[in-house]
Amino acid sequence: MENISPFKGIIKDVKGRSACYKQDWVSGFRSGYRILAPTTYIFFASALPVIAFGEQLSRDTDGALSPVETLASTALCGIIHSIVGGQPLLILGVAEPTIIMYTYLYNFCKARAELGKQLFLAWAAWVCVWTALLLILLAIFNACTIITRFTRIAGELFGMLITVLFIQEAIKGVVSEFNIPKGENPNLEKYQFHWLYTNGLLAVIFSFGLTITALKTRKARSWRYGTGWFRSFIAEYGVPLMVVCWTALSYTVPRKVNSGIPRRLFCPLLWEPESLPHWTVIKDMGNVPIEYIFAAIIPALMIAGLYFFDHSVASQLAQQKEFNLKYPSTYHYDVLLLGVMTLICGLLGLPPSNGVLPQSPMHTKSLSVLKKQLIRKKMVKSAKEGKLQHASNSEIYGRMQAVFIKMDQSPAVSTIDNELKNLKEAVMRGGDGDDDAKENFDPEKDIDAYLPVRVNEQRVSNLLQSLLVGLSLCALPVIKMIPTSVLWGYFAYMAIDSLPGNQFWERLLLLFITPSRRYKVFEGAHASFVESVPFKPILMFTLFQFVYLVICFGVTWIPIAGILFPLPFFLLITIREHIFPKFFHYEHLRELDAAEYEEKSGTPRRNFDLIREEQSTDSRSEGSEDDFYDAEILDEITTNRGELKLRSRSTKEERLYQVHPEEKAELNSSSNRF
Amino acid sequence: MENISPFKGIIKDVKGRSACYKQDWVSGFRSGYRILAPTTYIFFASALPVIAFGEQLSRDTDGALSPVETLASTALCGIIHSIVGGQPLLILGVAEPTIIMYTYLYNFCKARAELGKQLFLAWAAWVCVWTALLLILLAIFNACTIITRFTRIAGELFGMLITVLFIQEAIKGVVSEFNIPKGENPNLEKYQFHWLYTNGLLAVIFSFGLTITALKTRKARSWRYGTGWFRSFIAEYGVPLMVVCWTALSYTVPRKVNSGIPRRLFCPLLWEPESLPHWTVIKDMGNVPIEYIFAAIIPALMIAGLYFFDHSVASQLAQQKEFNLKYPSTYHYDVLLLGVMTLICGLLGLPPSNGVLPQSPMHTKSLSVLKKQLIRKKMVKSAKEGKLQHASNSEIYGRMQAVFIKMDQSPAVSTIDNELKNLKEAVMRGGDGDDDAKENFDPEKDIDAYLPVRVNEQRVSNLLQSLLVGLSLCALPVIKMIPTSVLWGYFAYMAIDSLPGNQFWERLLLLFITPSRRYKVFEGAHASFVESVPFKPILMFTLFQFVYLVICFGVTWIPIAGILFPLPFFLLITIREHIFPKFFHYEHLRELDAAEYEEKSGTPRRNFDLIREEQSTDSRSEGSEDDFYDAEILDEITTNRGELKLRSRSTKEERLYQVHPEEKAELNSSSNRF
Repeated sequence: MENISPFKGIIKDVKGRSACYKQDWVSGFRSGYRILAPTTYIFFASALPVIAFGEQLSRDTDGALSPVETLASTALCGIIHSIVGGQPLLILGVAEPTIIMYTYLYNFCKARAELGKQLFLAWAAWVCVWTALLLILLAIFNACTIITRFTRIAGELFGMLITVLFIQEAIKGVVSEFNIPKGENPNLEKYQFHWLYTNGLLAVIFSFGLTITALKTRKARSWRYGTGWFRSFIAEYGVPLMVVCWTALSYTVPRKVNSGIPRRLFCPLLWEPESLPHWTVIKDMGNVPIEYIFAAIIPALMIAGLYFFDHSVASQLAQQKEFNLKYPSTYHYDVLLLGVMTLICGLLGLPPSNGVLPQSPMHTKSLSVLKKQLIRKKMVKSAKEGKLQHASNSEIYGRMQAVFIKMDQSPAVSTIDNELKNLKEAVMRGGDGDDDAKENFDPEKDIDAYLPVRVNEQRVSNLLQSLLVGLSLCALPVIKMIPTSVLWGYFAYMAIDSLPGNQFWERLLLLFITPSRRYKVFEGAHASFVESVPFKPILMFTLFQFVYLVICFGVTWIPIAGILFPLPFFLLITIREHIFPKFFHYEHLRELDAAEYEEKSGTPRRNFDLIREEQSTDSRSEGSEDDFYDAEILDEITTNRGELKLRSRSTKEERLYQVHPEEKAELNSSSNRF
Repeated sequence: MENISPFKGIIKDVKGRSACYKQDWVSGFRSGYRILAPTTYIFFASALPVIAFGEQLSRDTDGALSPVETLASTALCGIIHSIVGGQPLLILGVAEPTIIMYTYLYNFCKARAELGKQLFLAWAAWVCVWTALLLILLAIFNACTIITRFTRIAGELFGMLITVLFIQEAIKGVVSEFNIPKGENPNLEKYQFHWLYTNGLLAVIFSFGLTITALKTRKARSWRYGTGWFRSFIAEYGVPLMVVCWTALSYTVPRKVNSGIPRRLFCPLLWEPESLPHWTVIKDMGNVPIEYIFAAIIPALMIAGLYFFDHSVASQLAQQKEFNLKYPSTYHYDVLLLGVMTLICGLLGLPPSNGVLPQSPMHTKSLSVLKKQLIRKKMVKSAKEGKLQHASNSEIYGRMQAVFIKMDQSPAVSTIDNELKNLKEAVMRGGDGDDDAKENFDPEKDIDAYLPVRVNEQRVSNLLQSLLVGLSLCALPVIKMIPTSVLWGYFAYMAIDSLPGNQFWERLLLLFITPSRRYKVFEGAHASFVESVPFKPILMFTLFQFVYLVICFGVTWIPIAGILFPLPFFLLITIREHIFPKFFHYEHLRELDAAEYEEKSGTPRRNFDLIREEQSTDSRSEGSEDDFYDAEILDEITTNRGELKLRSRSTKEERLYQVHPEEKAELNSSSNRF
């Protein structure tokens, strides 16, 4: 622990970030209307799950909390974070762990006479108070320095647990459509058997329909059909579009069907009396018995641990080094602010928000596409001007470099020289003065191929999307039109969508491939561990992870002690550090579970260039396609969760040389055993 | 017209085939229990559509004909053909065109007071009499010689029309589940609105479920998961298995749901009175007014043309030259026999059967896998024995050749030498006498890679599958358990499954690919026309085909004159021969619409070897997987309809050299225009 002195991390963060605070706003506004593309993209990606989680929470807490509160919390925290937060690329929202925790809190309160339903929010506020305190302490004592020591195993497992919980929620949801909701009058016409059954069948159709169509739209960017604009639109807004389509379809149900079918979202509107008690939560806090105030420390410990982990990892993934971010990170300060926001949410009776995972790296990704479009446009223009004026190649390169430096707003010219090296070589290829050879340099193509990744780092898109989430509170009458079954399908979609790119999942699948078929894995793009780690360690590691997952899932089923479900994950970090190295080879662990969310360094960079070069040599006649095309490249090299994929692209022959002979023999012999 | 003398073709066919008639039975029985695999495979592939068509016919003829009659006709004709037919690889069955024709005949009868429903079968018998006469005349006057001049365009279009009609049937079927069937009492409990609606929703679930799952099983052979046996089983029996699964699922509907829901197949059992009137059809034929007896010539002309075309093409595809069949073809004699069978069916009041298309080449395909397994086993054994005895390489090859000749039962040793050339080279590679070098030859691998395709030509599998179809008449009480909605899904499955490999469909898709994306087509396996024909001729040709398809589809909607729907196809053969050459370049036509169902000769052979070589170098540790593996190769090189695919596998670089520069420029310029 190097940074032991308190406040050191926070102070450093504040200093570093305040230096570029003004620029954060200027770059945002300078992008003009184009900033709306990443804004709406992230808004939809972030609002939909928040509504789904709100509906889940509403069922689990008998309506004490609903989409109103989850949307309000997301909007409020998002606005605060985008204005005074450290890393504006980080997207905040109410996430699934919060929902699970709040469900445990609610069940706990309901079971105690001293608390009951009416003191649920007040007690939850106390939990938030403790959580806030713990988070602030973590920030002050520089706990964030340990995040560099997190390995992937805990994150992977946690991701898989959430996936399993989503699937469980989807199944429970669809089954519930066949039954009378608890607390409803079973004598109502719509709860007669034939209408219940009709409702259930419609739910099956809507939920499967949404899941299948939403998954299809995710692959739109690589479709062969349709224009680039269309494919890009479907890939980015396909999921909300499908929600709209299936909702519209749900209105084609004939009039003769009972009007309560299909069931739709149930949430009070912002201005209805059900939304009002939140303003009295602070007053109620005094009514919580003292022993329960202290008992609140136990869930607070869990929530603080979870939030600290989730928030930091989300922030880390939004700032992966392949994005070449220019502004400093602010892990310590952001955790401090998270503590403050948790406190505010708690006192207002809202479930708190934290950094959310697929959305944060998705945000950075969409901004890097935007930035590239802006830079390229200006550089191509200056290069073309240079060519018209018959400037020499080095003059042209000088102009382009100047444009780049200006756009980049980076003072370190030396690193830029290095980054632009490839572009310079492309420009200089023909040699100075020789007019014929100059033709070799094609501004459009070469700039496209050799421009380094740049992200439009600013606060405007985050602020705007948070404001949109806030505005959607006024759109609740529209949101209420969504059938609940569409949401169950959305849960299934989120579960399935999170699987590709999760190495744990990929390893699980690998175990089910018959040995004689494993060569097929090598033929496609594949993670490097497949080649470098023998089958037996992969098997052991994966089986351990699977058993651990089953245990974690089992814990969530325990009635009230289930609140301790994050404990196994904290434990796992220790197990990984102290016990795993005794059973697994160092090199194998490095491949299967590397620190800092990356495997062998250097690999991703190469692949990135590789894919880019490959693509840019392909025939692309229309310049207007370029915008969508960048996004496609990024899609190819990142997982659905926004992490950069580490993929080997060796051909069969290369592979034969690459695989170490004795390891290969081991792989074969172990595979024969299965 | 060289063979103008009557009976010449028939006599030649009978002579050629009777020489190997005994062998047809001997080889069948010698295969032992292994013959059951292709038998059950073809049985399911052939029985399911016949049941589906029967149900369609039953609805369209108000129950006058039903699955009982379609199954009976298929079994009867199948048994006759397998025993006295010419080409035993040809599979017979009641096909969709017959159903459409019979529907027109029924509607015609219903509208005339002189005929009415009760004389429908008698009049249809007259149509069959005329059809039989025409077919017999065609056979006698050697009309089959013209089939070598058929080009793909008419077949492709006809295939697409059937696909469109299947989709129409599927949609009509699902919609009908929401309505009260005509002629039923609307006051029944099961026809109350809420039960009707429930029935409709269940139909949507079952039909989509069957379509999606059945399509998935088709790809089972290339799955990464599961053992070879399992994947092979799913790929071959997945579709009937899914029908069973969805039928089983339909019984999980709660008991409270009305017992008439979901609707199931409606057909009388063989021993019920509804099945009896067929035996009196001959008697009724005398009651048909004389003018209608002669009017029956018009539909007979259409049916004879259709049958002649369908039967010959099915036979042709079952005998593609890549299968290396040893026994002679019998087109003339088979058409004669088809005439006789049509007559028998007509007099018995059954819809006639003819050669069916996906099933016939599927049959040959499954028999070639079987034969290869048998030959390889013996050859590997003899090669291993030779190695153990330290025989020289030429001795080993000699033994293997002897085994092959014995298994092949072919007297022409010279052609065999040619076919085994590659294998001989592989064996000899090491040179004689040098013991170390001998290791180069691996019996398992090399025999696998260089063994020529051989088909187990026999009559047993065809006879057995026809008997099974006949037996399934006794299984009608079980077949009646299938929900009708599962059949609608099956229609959709058949439609979608027939699309890949249809060049017309592939060209239609190509038109929807944006120009900047066309390079993606080149990256995968693709038909050669994509490279060698400029975009404009492809566009014109495909648009013409599309407009023609719309016209043909429109004709089927005309109430009674719709019976002339095969006319445009006959016309198309003339258009292709006389008008197309004026608008399209000879070389382009050769690619887009070649004669004899093949494109540039020689290409398929090369690809076949190419894929095989590529695959056999891959690591395959288990010998037991080989059996399934052959089927996988065949799957890869043939379409779902059993036609050999003609695919270029050029890489990007190769392509740049292959494409003629001026054509490339034309391609680019034309693509820019779109």
